[in-house]
Amino acid sequence: MCRPLPPQLLADCHLLGRWPETTLLLHRNSGVPWMILVPDTDMADLLDLPQARLLPLLSQAADVAALIRRRWSLTKINVAALGNVVPQLHLHVIGRSPEDPCWPRPVWGQLPDSAGYSTGEVAAIRRAAAESFAEFAAASSPE
Amino acid sequence: MCRPLPPQLLADCHLLGRWPETTLLLHRNSGVPWMILVPDTDMADLLDLPQARLLPLLSQAADVAALIRRRWSLTKINVAALGNVVPQLHLHVIGRSPEDPCWPRPVWGQLPDSAGYSTGEVAAIRRAAAESFAEFAAASSPE
Repeated sequence: MCRPLPPQLLADCHLLGRWPETTLLLHRNSGVPWMILVPDTDMADLLDLPQARLLPLLSQAADVAALIRRRWSLTKINVAALGNVVPQLHLHVIGRSPEDPCWPRPVWGQLPDSAGYSTGEVAAIRRAAAESFAEFAAASSPE
Repeated sequence: MCRPLPPQLLADCHLLGRWPETTLLLHRNSGVPWMILVPDTDMADLLDLPQARLLPLLSQAADVAALIRRRWSLTKINVAALGNVVPQLHLHVIGRSPEDPCWPRPVWGQLPDSAGYSTGEVAAIRRAAAESFAEFAAASSPE
């Protein structure tokens, strides 16, 4: 990884770890399970990625979706690449359920503040990611 | 195509036309250029699609993004598969700009009503799609 992560994403998220060309973040708002993949690229829009970069990213996102479904016992996944506020390309993978705090609205700007994750919870999610994802290196804990 | 389109999408959108396994819609709100691709599948979530279905869909979405950028002279594209309100899988491809009516917020539930497109504008967009996309059949006009 050579490109620095966007400061706003770092402020909003816990660092979970990295694949060789993608960083995985966990949004601090624990109202929904919300992960963000940041590929190491200068491209700003998802659909501009060449297939050789897009396919691994989507495969990682599918693995993240599977982890979210399993760990939080839910089925619905929202996937989005917006980038209106933070221009550097990042892909949201968010577990949703009719019981969550802003269902059925999208989460951006509409998810109420939450208590957030405890240090132990973040460490456990980091371990689960390391056990679930191929070629993934968990960040050292605590951050 | 064998699956009917979700009634709410049909109510919200103009039908532009179809690729063999994907329908293309234009959201009636003309505040931003907002197209929706509906693949003919029983899968509800984008990341569940097998690669043989996901790749053509993303290639079509990239073509739609290119048309939006060209026709509306803007660069930023938002891509999202949510499906909290309309469960049938559909992919939003939306052109954004700092001058649009809800920048930088996401459009869902936050885009003010617009006058909409004239019949002639929809027909012109349909023609542009037919001229731009391989294997795409424009819907007959008027709807």
